[in-house]
Amino acid sequence: MSALDDDAYRAFRRDLHRHPEPAWREFYTTARIAEELRERDLTELYVGPDALATEDRMNVPDDEELAEWERRARDAGADPEIVDRLSGGYTGCVAVAERGPGPVVGLRVDIDALPVRESADDDHVPAAEGFRSEREGYMHACGHDAHATMGLGTLDAVLDSDFSGTLKVFFQPGEEQVAGAKPMAESGHLDDVDYLYAVHVGLDHPSGEVVCGVDGFLAVRHFLAEFTGEPSHAGARPEQGRNAVQAMAAAVQNLYAIPRHADGPTRVNAGLVGGGTATNVIPEESYIEGELRGATTELADYMSEHADRVLESAAGMHDCEVEVATKGEAPSATSDDALAGIVGEVAGGVDGVTRIVDRDDLGGSEDATYLMQSVQQRGGLACYVGVGTDHPGGHHTSAFDVVESDIAVGIDVLSGAIRRVAETRP
Amino acid sequence: MSALDDDAYRAFRRDLHRHPEPAWREFYTTARIAEELRERDLTELYVGPDALATEDRMNVPDDEELAEWERRARDAGADPEIVDRLSGGYTGCVAVAERGPGPVVGLRVDIDALPVRESADDDHVPAAEGFRSEREGYMHACGHDAHATMGLGTLDAVLDSDFSGTLKVFFQPGEEQVAGAKPMAESGHLDDVDYLYAVHVGLDHPSGEVVCGVDGFLAVRHFLAEFTGEPSHAGARPEQGRNAVQAMAAAVQNLYAIPRHADGPTRVNAGLVGGGTATNVIPEESYIEGELRGATTELADYMSEHADRVLESAAGMHDCEVEVATKGEAPSATSDDALAGIVGEVAGGVDGVTRIVDRDDLGGSEDATYLMQSVQQRGGLACYVGVGTDHPGGHHTSAFDVVESDIAVGIDVLSGAIRRVAETRP
Amino acid sequence: MSALDDDAYRAFRRDLHRHPEPAWREFYTTARIAEELRERDLTELYVGPDALATEDRMNVPDDEELAEWERRARDAGADPEIVDRLSGGYTGCVAVAERGPGPVVGLRVDIDALPVRESADDDHVPAAEGFRSEREGYMHACGHDAHATMGLGTLDAVLDSDFSGTLKVFFQPGEEQVAGAKPMAESGHLDDVDYLYAVHVGLDHPSGEVVCGVDGFLAVRHFLAEFTGEPSHAGARPEQGRNAVQAMAAAVQNLYAIPRHADGPTRVNAGLVGGGTATNVIPEESYIEGELRGATTELADYMSEHADRVLESAAGMHDCEVEVATKGEAPSATSDDALAGIVGEVAGGVDGVTRIVDRDDLGGSEDATYLMQSVQQRGGLACYVGVGTDHPGGHHTSAFDVVESDIAVGIDVLSGAIRRVAETRP
Amino acid sequence: MSALDDDAYRAFRRDLHRHPEPAWREFYTTARIAEELRERDLTELYVGPDALATEDRMNVPDDEELAEWERRARDAGADPEIVDRLSGGYTGCVAVAERGPGPVVGLRVDIDALPVRESADDDHVPAAEGFRSEREGYMHACGHDAHATMGLGTLDAVLDSDFSGTLKVFFQPGEEQVAGAKPMAESGHLDDVDYLYAVHVGLDHPSGEVVCGVDGFLAVRHFLAEFTGEPSHAGARPEQGRNAVQAMAAAVQNLYAIPRHADGPTRVNAGLVGGGTATNVIPEESYIEGELRGATTELADYMSEHADRVLESAAGMHDCEVEVATKGEAPSATSDDALAGIVGEVAGGVDGVTRIVDRDDLGGSEDATYLMQSVQQRGGLACYVGVGTDHPGGHHTSAFDVVESDIAVGIDVLSGAIRRVAETRP
Repeated sequence: MSALDDDAYRAFRRDLHRHPEPAWREFYTTARIAEELRERDLTELYVGPDALATEDRMNVPDDEELAEWERRARDAGADPEIVDRLSGGYTGCVAVAERGPGPVVGLRVDIDALPVRESADDDHVPAAEGFRSEREGYMHACGHDAHATMGLGTLDAVLDSDFSGTLKVFFQPGEEQVAGAKPMAESGHLDDVDYLYAVHVGLDHPSGEVVCGVDGFLAVRHFLAEFTGEPSHAGARPEQGRNAVQAMAAAVQNLYAIPRHADGPTRVNAGLVGGGTATNVIPEESYIEGELRGATTELADYMSEHADRVLESAAGMHDCEVEVATKGEAPSATSDDALAGIVGEVAGGVDGVTRIVDRDDLGGSEDATYLMQSVQQRGGLACYVGVGTDHPGGHHTSAFDVVESDIAVGIDVLSGAIRRVAETRP
Repeated sequence: MSALDDDAYRAFRRDLHRHPEPAWREFYTTARIAEELRERDLTELYVGPDALATEDRMNVPDDEELAEWERRARDAGADPEIVDRLSGGYTGCVAVAERGPGPVVGLRVDIDALPVRESADDDHVPAAEGFRSEREGYMHACGHDAHATMGLGTLDAVLDSDFSGTLKVFFQPGEEQVAGAKPMAESGHLDDVDYLYAVHVGLDHPSGEVVCGVDGFLAVRHFLAEFTGEPSHAGARPEQGRNAVQAMAAAVQNLYAIPRHADGPTRVNAGLVGGGTATNVIPEESYIEGELRGATTELADYMSEHADRVLESAAGMHDCEVEVATKGEAPSATSDDALAGIVGEVAGGVDGVTRIVDRDDLGGSEDATYLMQSVQQRGGLACYVGVGTDHPGGHHTSAFDVVESDIAVGIDVLSGAIRRVAETRP
Repeated sequence: MSALDDDAYRAFRRDLHRHPEPAWREFYTTARIAEELRERDLTELYVGPDALATEDRMNVPDDEELAEWERRARDAGADPEIVDRLSGGYTGCVAVAERGPGPVVGLRVDIDALPVRESADDDHVPAAEGFRSEREGYMHACGHDAHATMGLGTLDAVLDSDFSGTLKVFFQPGEEQVAGAKPMAESGHLDDVDYLYAVHVGLDHPSGEVVCGVDGFLAVRHFLAEFTGEPSHAGARPEQGRNAVQAMAAAVQNLYAIPRHADGPTRVNAGLVGGGTATNVIPEESYIEGELRGATTELADYMSEHADRVLESAAGMHDCEVEVATKGEAPSATSDDALAGIVGEVAGGVDGVTRIVDRDDLGGSEDATYLMQSVQQRGGLACYVGVGTDHPGGHHTSAFDVVESDIAVGIDVLSGAIRRVAETRP
Repeated sequence: MSALDDDAYRAFRRDLHRHPEPAWREFYTTARIAEELRERDLTELYVGPDALATEDRMNVPDDEELAEWERRARDAGADPEIVDRLSGGYTGCVAVAERGPGPVVGLRVDIDALPVRESADDDHVPAAEGFRSEREGYMHACGHDAHATMGLGTLDAVLDSDFSGTLKVFFQPGEEQVAGAKPMAESGHLDDVDYLYAVHVGLDHPSGEVVCGVDGFLAVRHFLAEFTGEPSHAGARPEQGRNAVQAMAAAVQNLYAIPRHADGPTRVNAGLVGGGTATNVIPEESYIEGELRGATTELADYMSEHADRVLESAAGMHDCEVEVATKGEAPSATSDDALAGIVGEVAGGVDGVTRIVDRDDLGGSEDATYLMQSVQQRGGLACYVGVGTDHPGGHHTSAFDVVESDIAVGIDVLSGAIRRVAETRP
């Protein structure tokens, strides 16, 4: 088998949709993708640890959690040999097709899912048509099932064309936690990429719209700060405690008060916090899972430096210790005009495209920027493409869904742009 | 059957020890006590809802949790008829024995356990001798199994004597959460009690010591504050959130800063806190489970008033709402000299007592004070008795245990004091 | 006398420079301007209360302070009759010259000084040439002496031309405290103005540059929050205090933590704070003098609403009261292209102009925006003009100064633009 | 001249009352005392630097301030030769009278005044009778004028008796700032004192009462924390500031939240705070003048260690520096029973004494404890004596005053106790 027909792409997407997997747990997803890829005429297929700079993985779950998801993947019928290679949370893969002289063109798609419970309502298509998530509490609520399918379809379309050059498709894990791009960017596979495209469906653009260059990515850092003090009986010996909840509270108050920066927007959030064990025990432990952002990498670094100092000082203030770990990060990036222009030209001739949007701002973060920045720093060009779709619920909500015929639009636009860029070498 | 021999008391205590149950979940414990009591020659036995002012119960778990513990009790062999009467979390019982003219004397023992995982070490007697907790994660880590046994044994000893008067034994649930005393004190059963004893083992006093009047109880209030704001995307729309974690942090900082009071010690602790859902979402919800104490009820009230204002203002500061609920409370109380004196006299003649301690300060809280205060306010007398025991681990630790022969010491001291007080009517 | 020659303008500017006066204390300055204006062929001259919506004055000093500065003005030789009319802190004036049919064109210049001690160094021209400030601790450190002179000179130039229409020159007090524009904007004199120019020297542009439209004004609100609690002896009766310093500190921490806004830059500063009386007294009083800004008026309002809630809640948290007063405010505003274009055209023909800058961002606040917005809201046009000058020290520093020959550049540009706008009526 | 009659003592007290002087500025007061002392038959008179361990002085004002008060003392007629010796803020004196074999008995009186504006009301005796403060804004509002007079009168009475032993009277400066005791205690003059009395009038005890041992002194430390950051324009460059007001606010919030201590009362107060320069400047500087207390010296040390850490961490949190200086300190101390008993015995026979109070708690701080502790640590005995007086206003208020006839009561009690202690050598 090589290229799939539309029905087969739909079936593939629905299979992935039924098996949503979060960061570093994409065992089933990676296996299914690799199973398809090995049917193609590829030069190389790098799977799992071979696709990653393994030491750069961030926010990897513990062994028990990984083993549980690995087991589920096997139970669901994933090829056991492939799963063996992914064991330990080494997910994702890179497909390489050398097709004669020409530039190296990359396409990055992400493959992970979210901890969102999927709607079971009748008006939610996956529920009505029987491909609702089988991993209760997890869901493809941001369309990465469609992205993976577009990656496969675009590869098929390019292989089926007169494309001359090398195509690399990066099936990236862990985007939702901004944890997977760095190990893929640092893997070496990106080093010779001259032109890179990344893609996202939806983004509040309806079916028929194509956004030729998404910008406004905020650089971001996710952190986990763990405070450790000393417990004591709150009634009998309050002075013997070293209060980790007071430390955490002081940190929260002062994190949000990091000075605004005149060079552009910054963000901070202590999104998930907790501490203590019982009302009558001075809390020994507490934590903050938070994030810091900036319109540029410099601004995110500014926030990060201040936050580290606040966390350290808040711990010291209450005689506690704190360990601060980075759980995910991504720089900012901007789409290059030349590649964006090509997308616009190509999209004009694609069936189903009714409106071409020049540029749009994301206003959030996305770790494709890691790969984009990496290519751009070596003198290459990069562009983030938006493919509209009528999504009934917002991104990351239980009612999110995509119009499946828009997957073909994405495949046509991306494969067209890849071919055009190889010809024109802008 | 009526009175048990020492082996039987030991077996009874070990049975309770194997089935530790926290507040309002003492289904097995209450059933086992009631099973024993109905063998005695009692005037009345009030069980479950009949032993409580039911509307005064605090911190009752949800139905699912109650049902689970009730099921466990049945599975462990508790009398189903008794468990039926306790259904819904109405635990505890009151035994009444009228034995001729004379005053009404009360004895209060508590019966609940703690969320502590019991040691499985060989040098931990319950583990070594096969009566370690069968409720993983819960443990009689404060000796209430011994207290319940003393309650039964003291009743037996008094019934077996020439005591003239009425004896009431209060088997009280929910002490560890200071949640069970109020509904028992308000049940009506305490209204005619002239003299009340309460008892505790250990308290850092070794085997052989008896403390004739424990004092220094801090009045206490447990509260749960739940903050509600509004979520929003922390990167794209930080201004649309109403941040419940910021509100919680502001509250924590200012709770600990409630002014010290010149009239005596006060305490405050935000012992268990949490909030938020994900790093990139402005937190919609947060909570503080905390406690407030004072050397007197007035001082605890002072702390409570300030805390309510701090919680309300912290919510308002970040445009959130807060609901504050009292989950437990107990006043301060002092042992009366007359009853303490009788304990000292009696203890002098009890086998195994090697040292009589006049008074000692607890420095913590205990809701027996609710019953003591209630009796004292009606003109009665009350006294809290400490029965020493060599406990290898501290109270509330996984290695806590009691020397079982000290249970007999407690029975002798308490039954002797009850008989003496009925004779002398101090 | 009517128009002055260059020497006379220089002398006039130096006279003002020697007598710097802050908001609502510009007695000498206003008198000197009015003395000159009454020599001109004006239709009307509105002085002091006649130039202002008096009830809209903000941040007026107390009577004692006003009387002291009024006395100094008289001692320095200001016309006593004019000073009489300014008595009570009613400073500033409006000159009106009707010169035939045509539009009403306004020019706004500000006249107040700063609480900065002027440099006495030899390389500071005012010190070297004998016109250093005679009001120790106050200084024209932002060039408003040059602005007032430009106002006079531009009037002279227009009167000396074939201008047809009405010219109004607004000599505005209290700009540095964003306190004087509102009462002048609300005075009625602005109501028929069709075109308005405002001007500033320097702004880090060197001599020879003209900025045709300054933008990026942050809307701003200055506030004074005064907290009142209750004192008590910190050792003997800490609980009887209501601590205004704790309230202030809680407010400061949470003011800076007002959420960032996705629509644009915001600012907050607790610039001047204080409280308490002695180490051993629980502080009864405290205050915050602060400011809130936003890139738009809406953003400044957003900050202001949050700040009011924080201040109120911080007071409530410590059982204190707070009074919050607005001491100054200004909206944001944008220069209109049509007027900016005219400035550019005119400036091209002015001697001494070497570079024309299309637009520039101020990045601060300036209450000329009040007048600009007022004109624009009625359908008129407004433009803020920058006139470069080599200023040795930064604005608001003790070494600030202007190149006096640049005053003539400003007069030529402004009078030219006023004449052109009356002709072309854009 | 030697001993004074009652009128002369009254005149002396009124002279001091008219010339109230705060810490290290007691030039007139010391001079007047020394002038009187040199008329007595003393063995030694140590004045100024000879009475102090000069390097241990705390919280000494700057030279300008000292020079101003020195000048006032000279203008008021103080002996210029004595003032010369005090120059630089070396105030206070020690009188030594050796009168045959026997123990060394010390009496400590304090001589400084307070920054309180004295009442000018007709019902305020000093105002009505013409000896109201001539140092506007300063007042003997705690009776140290009476103490100094009692010191002189007690010396006279002892010298006029058959006392055998050595009497030393310590006229101590700077008590109100707990700044003067340490340098006097460390001067060497106290090293051979066997018995020490200290005295205070009032303390809410009416005329006729004598308190034989005042206790409950809280150990105390006064500190000044000065934060230094970096200023920047709050609108244009908020990120370039390092905000000293945010640091101060974080410190205030967390100082009050230092954990309560189970061993006894503790206190903390940020009594006087300030910072910043203008609304639009990120504050570069701020300060906290505060105090820390504990029922024992250990508890005060506990507070002090925590406070130092809080101050340091709060500075670090906002990238500022902080300097923390101790401006005054005093330990806790307890009156010895033996000396207190003697006071009680003697007081029983003194005219005007109607009630003898065994013990009373001060509930505040007083640096006589430095001298008491110093004597006690060498094996001597010490006692703090209260002499009641009907004081119309509270201590440290503008209406405070003493009944002058109670000064004689104090002299009789103290001189009697000194003679008795020399006889009985308890």
